[in-house]
Amino acid sequence: MTHIKREDGRENFEKRPVKITRNYTMYAEGSVLIEVGNTKVICTASVNEKVPPFLKNQGKGWITAEYSMLPRATDERNMREAAKGKLTGRTMEIQRLIGRALRASIDLEKLGERTITVDCDVIQADGGTRTASITGGYIALSLAMERLVRMGTLKENPLTSNIAAISVGIVNGVPMLDLKYTEDSSAEVDMNVIMNCKGEFVEVQGTGEESTYTREELNKMLELAEKGIKELIEVQEQEIREEFSL
Amino acid sequence: MTHIKREDGRENFEKRPVKITRNYTMYAEGSVLIEVGNTKVICTASVNEKVPPFLKNQGKGWITAEYSMLPRATDERNMREAAKGKLTGRTMEIQRLIGRALRASIDLEKLGERTITVDCDVIQADGGTRTASITGGYIALSLAMERLVRMGTLKENPLTSNIAAISVGIVNGVPMLDLKYTEDSSAEVDMNVIMNCKGEFVEVQGTGEESTYTREELNKMLELAEKGIKELIEVQEQEIREEFSL
Amino acid sequence: MTHIKREDGRENFEKRPVKITRNYTMYAEGSVLIEVGNTKVICTASVNEKVPPFLKNQGKGWITAEYSMLPRATDERNMREAAKGKLTGRTMEIQRLIGRALRASIDLEKLGERTITVDCDVIQADGGTRTASITGGYIALSLAMERLVRMGTLKENPLTSNIAAISVGIVNGVPMLDLKYTEDSSAEVDMNVIMNCKGEFVEVQGTGEESTYTREELNKMLELAEKGIKELIEVQEQEIREEFSL
Amino acid sequence: MTHIKREDGRENFEKRPVKITRNYTMYAEGSVLIEVGNTKVICTASVNEKVPPFLKNQGKGWITAEYSMLPRATDERNMREAAKGKLTGRTMEIQRLIGRALRASIDLEKLGERTITVDCDVIQADGGTRTASITGGYIALSLAMERLVRMGTLKENPLTSNIAAISVGIVNGVPMLDLKYTEDSSAEVDMNVIMNCKGEFVEVQGTGEESTYTREELNKMLELAEKGIKELIEVQEQEIREEFSL
Amino acid sequence: MTHIKREDGRENFEKRPVKITRNYTMYAEGSVLIEVGNTKVICTASVNEKVPPFLKNQGKGWITAEYSMLPRATDERNMREAAKGKLTGRTMEIQRLIGRALRASIDLEKLGERTITVDCDVIQADGGTRTASITGGYIALSLAMERLVRMGTLKENPLTSNIAAISVGIVNGVPMLDLKYTEDSSAEVDMNVIMNCKGEFVEVQGTGEESTYTREELNKMLELAEKGIKELIEVQEQEIREEFSL
Amino acid sequence: MTHIKREDGRENFEKRPVKITRNYTMYAEGSVLIEVGNTKVICTASVNEKVPPFLKNQGKGWITAEYSMLPRATDERNMREAAKGKLTGRTMEIQRLIGRALRASIDLEKLGERTITVDCDVIQADGGTRTASITGGYIALSLAMERLVRMGTLKENPLTSNIAAISVGIVNGVPMLDLKYTEDSSAEVDMNVIMNCKGEFVEVQGTGEESTYTREELNKMLELAEKGIKELIEVQEQEIREEFSL
Repeated sequence: MTHIKREDGRENFEKRPVKITRNYTMYAEGSVLIEVGNTKVICTASVNEKVPPFLKNQGKGWITAEYSMLPRATDERNMREAAKGKLTGRTMEIQRLIGRALRASIDLEKLGERTITVDCDVIQADGGTRTASITGGYIALSLAMERLVRMGTLKENPLTSNIAAISVGIVNGVPMLDLKYTEDSSAEVDMNVIMNCKGEFVEVQGTGEESTYTREELNKMLELAEKGIKELIEVQEQEIREEFSL
Repeated sequence: MTHIKREDGRENFEKRPVKITRNYTMYAEGSVLIEVGNTKVICTASVNEKVPPFLKNQGKGWITAEYSMLPRATDERNMREAAKGKLTGRTMEIQRLIGRALRASIDLEKLGERTITVDCDVIQADGGTRTASITGGYIALSLAMERLVRMGTLKENPLTSNIAAISVGIVNGVPMLDLKYTEDSSAEVDMNVIMNCKGEFVEVQGTGEESTYTREELNKMLELAEKGIKELIEVQEQEIREEFSL
Repeated sequence: MTHIKREDGRENFEKRPVKITRNYTMYAEGSVLIEVGNTKVICTASVNEKVPPFLKNQGKGWITAEYSMLPRATDERNMREAAKGKLTGRTMEIQRLIGRALRASIDLEKLGERTITVDCDVIQADGGTRTASITGGYIALSLAMERLVRMGTLKENPLTSNIAAISVGIVNGVPMLDLKYTEDSSAEVDMNVIMNCKGEFVEVQGTGEESTYTREELNKMLELAEKGIKELIEVQEQEIREEFSL
Repeated sequence: MTHIKREDGRENFEKRPVKITRNYTMYAEGSVLIEVGNTKVICTASVNEKVPPFLKNQGKGWITAEYSMLPRATDERNMREAAKGKLTGRTMEIQRLIGRALRASIDLEKLGERTITVDCDVIQADGGTRTASITGGYIALSLAMERLVRMGTLKENPLTSNIAAISVGIVNGVPMLDLKYTEDSSAEVDMNVIMNCKGEFVEVQGTGEESTYTREELNKMLELAEKGIKELIEVQEQEIREEFSL
Repeated sequence: MTHIKREDGRENFEKRPVKITRNYTMYAEGSVLIEVGNTKVICTASVNEKVPPFLKNQGKGWITAEYSMLPRATDERNMREAAKGKLTGRTMEIQRLIGRALRASIDLEKLGERTITVDCDVIQADGGTRTASITGGYIALSLAMERLVRMGTLKENPLTSNIAAISVGIVNGVPMLDLKYTEDSSAEVDMNVIMNCKGEFVEVQGTGEESTYTREELNKMLELAEKGIKELIEVQEQEIREEFSL
Repeated sequence: MTHIKREDGRENFEKRPVKITRNYTMYAEGSVLIEVGNTKVICTASVNEKVPPFLKNQGKGWITAEYSMLPRATDERNMREAAKGKLTGRTMEIQRLIGRALRASIDLEKLGERTITVDCDVIQADGGTRTASITGGYIALSLAMERLVRMGTLKENPLTSNIAAISVGIVNGVPMLDLKYTEDSSAEVDMNVIMNCKGEFVEVQGTGEESTYTREELNKMLELAEKGIKELIEVQEQEIREEFSL
């Protein structure tokens, strides 16, 4: 791996600083503001004592996610999807990904017949908004679950393992961890990796952007991702411990 | 006017504390987070060097506004308008109101052929989100305009007078300033007042909620609103002075 | 108040002639054609023995309104909202206003669990279509209510007070009653006032059109509106008396 | 043909009385209210000095039609298509039919590069709304065309032959002319016939409603239709003569 | 009738060759690929043990149809209706026609409370797609019905008579049977005829394309159609016999 | 790797039989029917001499893809997206994936300012529809490109390397190649792999379905995929050689 200083001075294997503000909004059962470098996402977990029709009377719950960006979260203002009258393919893809990821962290039977909606609203975007949404969304979900336990709604915390996510990529031939926007937009390969605290994969999505990658490059990217996710999971656990004085 | 202590200890003629965080996001030409009590709105002003078709080649600019609430800005989660595929009547009414209000603060000819979009995204709602959007939106607009002047894009600041807005209402027969959500939802009359720094009205909207009000009550509400708006305009001016060390 | 002859010869304090054709269509429980000068609106009140979901099992009824213009009700043909696939913000704002206004005229508990939909379809538009819709809509509602009483569906007429509406504005610095289209489109201030037969306000909406107005001007406009609404309520009462030989 | 008295006393071969109110609205280049028995349709012809993209620069004009019913034009209130956000199949089918029919009455090259939109808005529906729309729409179109000639916009009237339409059907085994709603809804066969003043067919649409019909029945229905259309064309010509004192 | 050789060598009274591939797809209760010359349509009949709301608890079933074209079924690629977000008027008109036609072939009471959806997806279009959909749709329906009988779901086959459809038209003044696309697009008159095996009409739709036709021409077209439909019904019966070794 | 006989008798490392019918439809510049076991997809490549707005005047072309399933391509009939009025998230995700994959096979500059739309319409679905769409879509694209070369529209074939795709997964703990529907729906992990003829990855998407997978399992799945794709690319090359007698 060549040694190249990145625009913000990071090494290739370094992720950006992560900051969590717990209980960022006052109504949601769980909420955080997650900041990953300049990327900022409000994640809230909302509990609803119902399940979608396809799960009725099965004794199981559901986790779903929604994702959106404020119109000026980016350098150029984007039209609102509400004004367009429909979600873009990108939004749908991302919110399906977040939901799938978070469902891998929980025992849906222990959750019981309720739905948790994790809303991820990007306030400011500088690359990695979907992975920040997953990492922050897990904390919001975790705050909500622990609260349901303390309120007596749940007998037992249904979470089974932390889930976190990070991006990796190949920029100018060099594998790099946690791409910021300028890196991401010039990357030959862009990969999002979601793992749990046991070091298992929940999802790997690696895309050549009008380009391709070899098995060796794939391996290098996965190694960077594993390292980054391990660090993110430590942050998550620290926050949850602090919140509940565990 | 009867003397009744309000839920949060305010007098009837007292508005809630207002806090402005300037430059809340990094991309917009102007941006603030405005907090009015527990109501929090991100207001950004985005400059676009185009005008809508109906204004083409008239040497005039345009101000438009968009308004939205995060799904869990409220006690119960609301479905996203992007997911519904259309804006509600309430949203359209509010964003038309904000746009009209802000257009009354500016000389559109001096703005030249450009459009300013003021986005008001409610992070947390506790009553008065539309009036907070106008008060905060004006500051975002003002930051953007002064910057265009300093960058040389504009020769002269096109703003002609500050605009601020506040709600008043009648709750249990008593006129009150700046209703929080619990007050608003039990009010007999709900009025939004928008004024400029010269003490003139830009818009008055007073609605009996399955109720009515007399001319005398209307007058009392307008007096409360005038007092509140004067205070809000002082806050606005203080922020703008600080930003530009005027 | 300066003395200026208006385009159609009216004094500033004069409203346009109003003509009501009762039972204009044959299926609706109540229907009128209201003509205010050249503005013509068909108002029908339709009774449905159901309430919207948010009112189920509360022993209360509901009044809702819908508003539309025929495409060639105006000088230039407008595209149909059905063809666009959505209601404009203007339409939503107006139909919400009409519904709110009419709900202030009735005891919803006495109405019982039924919904009245008041449809206001503008056949020809020459200013003041929303206020004509409210004034005419009230008569259609009133015809329907009295009929339900006579048919024995209702024990008692649930209407509590007449509601009528009129526009006022400031044109070339002069406050004027009941603006026709050419006046409205050049007005500095446009205000819609809705009152009941007791002289109380149901709604006041006064908007500076890229302009502002003083407290004194507000007062003058409200006086004109009060006078106009008193006259409209006499017309309404006359029509209802004639219909039912009261 | 069996002799059966119809609900409203008509013979099988009798159409309902037709009443035309010319210039029913004040803005459209041509407008009528057509009443066929209790069916009432406002037809307006609006001229636009543009053609749709597929006809650009071909020296030809276009006629298009739109059709709608007021929500309470019928015995039960129908939801507005604008509120549903889309046109029903029935509406699309009808407005395509009206447009096709009217295009058969005109020389589109003589019309020049302009579009005439014929709006047919049903105020009250008692069967035969699509055929009344065509018959009335032709008069509105004709008033508009003659006016364009008199204003000097057109050198020559581009209309080539009157077009009118009527329904026929088989009710309880008996062929009948001009079905009213109660007849139409119990008809075994429902046929709409559009012809010109030369006795030629523009369109024939005959539908068995969960039923079928023989060649002989088809012939009988066509004879009734021919008779009815001849009478309608006389009404049209009378109206046009009166309007222009021809 | 003048004698003119057609582009593909057919006589005016000759239909194109018809080929049926039964059980073209493996999931549907009934399915065929119908090829009429170069026009190819996949028709499937899907059984659902429910009825639409307007038929609930009436002991009757329902037949409905949907029609679509693959984007490149035609010479120029057409945008998908799913991408446009709505069905075109043409599609709605066609699928309503197919549904009506097939309902005339069946005793809906004997079908019982179930819905059959006949999907007609045009793989390749060379004129006559709607009539091929009806002719092929009937076979798919028939395969499904016979299967429900053999499975014991139905006691008795509810079909009452074969239904088939064909187009006729007038091209360069000459009546012709079964128009291919190049003929159809230059036809003065275009007529679709749907008949049953008893020689009765289910539907006749004859349209002058900016043209008209006489009674005599109508008669000639109907004769051609009768001949063509008789041949199509033989094909249908042959296929059904082969399938069930009747 | 445990040895388990699969439902259809295949070994874990065996893909299903693949059958290509070239020139399946007559209008598209390139078209095939691809059958992978019981999965059948019509792939057409349509050439348009325009590019989307974001590519205007850059001397580059574009490849885009659309994906759809016939309603009865599956065991239970699915509602059409055109009837729902919008694409599902699944469809959008798949068509974005196909487009990205095919763009990795071509030099967009050599394509010149034209757009190729690859339509993938699933006639019958038995697992692996998205990978079959990519594998078949590449052949359709390739037929179209070679034809443009032979017609002289392109100087040089812009394709740079074959692209094919296959699914792998873990079913009951066992990695398997090319899952059919019953396998896919019970898989713990589902992975789609897209590679080129040089053995490089274009895209890897591996998803734990409420489950996770280890690095070792990931490696095994990638090996199976590489083997399968090598075989698919041989099929592709054979077809292209036969078509053009290369």
